[in-house]
Amino acid sequence: MKPASLLLLAAITLAPAAAIADQAASAPLQELAKTLPVPTADISPGMQKFIGAPLNPDWDKAWKTGEEARAYAIGQAAGVVKGIPAMLERLQVKLEPTTIGGVKVFVVTPATIPPENADKVLIHVHGGCYVLFPGESGTTEAIMMAGFGHYKVISVDYRMPPEAYFPVALDDAVDVYKAVLENTPAKNVAFFGTSAGGALALEMVLRARERGLPVPGAIAPGTPMSDVTKTGDSFYTNEKVDNILVSRDGFCDAATVIYAKGHDLKDPLLSPVYGDMHGFPPAILTTGTRDLLLSNTVRVHRNLRRAGVEAELVVFEGQSHAQYQFDDRLPETKEAFGEISKFFGDHLGH
Amino acid sequence: MKPASLLLLAAITLAPAAAIADQAASAPLQELAKTLPVPTADISPGMQKFIGAPLNPDWDKAWKTGEEARAYAIGQAAGVVKGIPAMLERLQVKLEPTTIGGVKVFVVTPATIPPENADKVLIHVHGGCYVLFPGESGTTEAIMMAGFGHYKVISVDYRMPPEAYFPVALDDAVDVYKAVLENTPAKNVAFFGTSAGGALALEMVLRARERGLPVPGAIAPGTPMSDVTKTGDSFYTNEKVDNILVSRDGFCDAATVIYAKGHDLKDPLLSPVYGDMHGFPPAILTTGTRDLLLSNTVRVHRNLRRAGVEAELVVFEGQSHAQYQFDDRLPETKEAFGEISKFFGDHLGH
Repeated sequence: MKPASLLLLAAITLAPAAAIADQAASAPLQELAKTLPVPTADISPGMQKFIGAPLNPDWDKAWKTGEEARAYAIGQAAGVVKGIPAMLERLQVKLEPTTIGGVKVFVVTPATIPPENADKVLIHVHGGCYVLFPGESGTTEAIMMAGFGHYKVISVDYRMPPEAYFPVALDDAVDVYKAVLENTPAKNVAFFGTSAGGALALEMVLRARERGLPVPGAIAPGTPMSDVTKTGDSFYTNEKVDNILVSRDGFCDAATVIYAKGHDLKDPLLSPVYGDMHGFPPAILTTGTRDLLLSNTVRVHRNLRRAGVEAELVVFEGQSHAQYQFDDRLPETKEAFGEISKFFGDHLGH
Repeated sequence: MKPASLLLLAAITLAPAAAIADQAASAPLQELAKTLPVPTADISPGMQKFIGAPLNPDWDKAWKTGEEARAYAIGQAAGVVKGIPAMLERLQVKLEPTTIGGVKVFVVTPATIPPENADKVLIHVHGGCYVLFPGESGTTEAIMMAGFGHYKVISVDYRMPPEAYFPVALDDAVDVYKAVLENTPAKNVAFFGTSAGGALALEMVLRARERGLPVPGAIAPGTPMSDVTKTGDSFYTNEKVDNILVSRDGFCDAATVIYAKGHDLKDPLLSPVYGDMHGFPPAILTTGTRDLLLSNTVRVHRNLRRAGVEAELVVFEGQSHAQYQFDDRLPETKEAFGEISKFFGDHLGH
């Protein structure tokens, strides 16, 4: 039998294919240039526009200092904050700044909270590569979660460069958790966030454990920056396919290096995919097929499952990084937060 | 605020991004040529060899008739069958050809069946683009499932071109199911398969319903050929990245056209992603990040969830089409069948 036939044989379902793999040298693959049409099947028209948008022109911003990143973040935040009042109105949610455990937070309260959610608290850690979305601009995901899920949410306005560097953001979030535990049992608390917020949700579990705190009842890391060492296949396969992060050598990498301030990027408190996931709470992860962090997400999912943790994975067709939460008016956004809400409903309190 | 900042803003988490999408023309993306290293993190050495193997040199076989496809299938099957005795020995499984409901099958029995599995039956439908893996060569996945899951498995040796064309393969499988129902309640039966077998597992639910039969207790469609109209983003993003199927215009497409014999490829009995999934049984789906059918898989997962069906998704890092079942000695293979077994254990019998 020719090797060619053996390989096609391997293509579908077989046993003795190991032989082929041994014969063939394992080598990098040269992917040729190609055209990717905007996918439309099972995707709303609004989401198709996000998916079909050109590459983020700011993808290669290479900030060198916390001050540079902050200057950018301030301009960006102003734009985000302008959209918040209409969003609060649409989703019937109230936003109040306060302090919990000595840390600045926003308490995000939906107009109605069903009885089964009344004793639950969700702690939100926003994304933005550990440098973006200071203050109110970091609350949009918390507002969506409160509005779609009908839970009380505490969104942590953790300190970021240039005020503070690793691990202050994480410790601010864990300080909030510790304070919440004074009035709420851990099993009634969830952590959630996207991108750096997804990583923080995972890191918080590791850090809480280090500090002798119980793990929460559930977590929802959305497309987590779980490996900031540029390891993961989709850093290559989805390079310049993801129109948001675009490249492993983009703005998010520069920002993370600033935040880490020389600390080992492979530390599980920066790259939680390397953390020990035994004993983690049930987790739901969300990503998209074009997401630069598709591998960061599925590797966490696999590692959780390998550690015996209940974990669900949601992968949206065609979406780049975090697009499931770009516009609360799109059906995919409602769907993403609906999945997370259902997961929290099934797992909190037990 | 400049559009550039708005787009980066959209990058992480925001509300008013819809405005940007409206501004920017949605357009196909030009992906440049690039080099994909063999991923290694969280991947076993054996699986790295499969992932790093060159593109399947037979990917563009363009059979025109059932006879041509069968000639190829016969040569390939001989190679597969040679590996089966050692596999049966390794997994401690027995394979017996027989007939059920007038259809040729193999009964696949593990050496030990725990009491909770004793009244359960799994029906296996093999892959091979509806033309490959006749006879015993179609049983490898059934052997793995029996061996790893400790369930009795019936592997359907459904008729294929040139003996028979659509929908005979499907009806053979449903005939076996109907016969099994004489002795086993539907809630104790599962359907599973990979590739064309994954599609058949979905199509069997639709066809069973058409024929007035109850739906089974659970299904496990592995990287299903759920859309044979070449629709789905990963037909483009993973083109010539998946080293097994390689292209939407490859051997599997040619084979499916032969099987369909002029029938509309968008019929849910050929492209089950278009089927009504309300009332489907709980489902677990498996794929890989480089799989040409990644989108075929996640679209089915989303459509099941949108229809309110309990459905889990497993995505393996770096794997191309169906590589999770290429070698029963790899940890990822044990893991894939472990996930399915656990899912069946949780869902059958209720």
